[in-house]
Amino acid sequence: MNFEALPRQVNSVDVGVYECEIHLKFRLIEEKSLLSDRDQLLQVLLDALTEGSDDFLETLQATVKAQEVSELKASPQMRRQLMRLRNSQEVSQ
Amino acid sequence: MNFEALPRQVNSVDVGVYECEIHLKFRLIEEKSLLSDRDQLLQVLLDALTEGSDDFLETLQATVKAQEVSELKASPQMRRQLMRLRNSQEVSQ
Repeated sequence: MNFEALPRQVNSVDVGVYECEIHLKFRLIEEKSLLSDRDQLLQVLLDALTEGSDDFLETLQATVKAQEVSELKASPQMRRQLMRLRNSQEVSQ
Repeated sequence: MNFEALPRQVNSVDVGVYECEIHLKFRLIEEKSLLSDRDQLLQVLLDALTEGSDDFLETLQATVKAQEVSELKASPQMRRQLMRLRNSQEVSQ
């Protein structure tokens, strides 16, 4: 499938595929019961980070990168989603 | 100040200080305008991650760690917050 044939910008909301990297180290005050569940650990930490640095969270190190990449690097599921997104934008105009 | 003298568990909500590390690599479908603002980049990525993996996000690598550390490693602000938190829990019982 040739994605280059798709309109690059169908309206003001232009979307792309990005490869992103987040590397964070931080200290956190948290309930012990929340952090003992390994399955929900990432979610608990993301929730804390979303609230930002305050008296409960101290950032020690932060690296954040986002680079646009070819749509061909995305999974078939993501490429289908991208097409749906752009088609729906065309219809809604 | 000797934090060891504080009650270790004032009620069922026991809190601690954790050193946490998150290292994530992922592909993301996102609006280009959102990711072009470096100041809000981390917040945009956290919001996307909070919604979890779906057709818009593909996790490539994930490392998540949380280790309880001595309260003495926390900043004075965090230690004050920890004391306030425990005091308020004692009062509310």
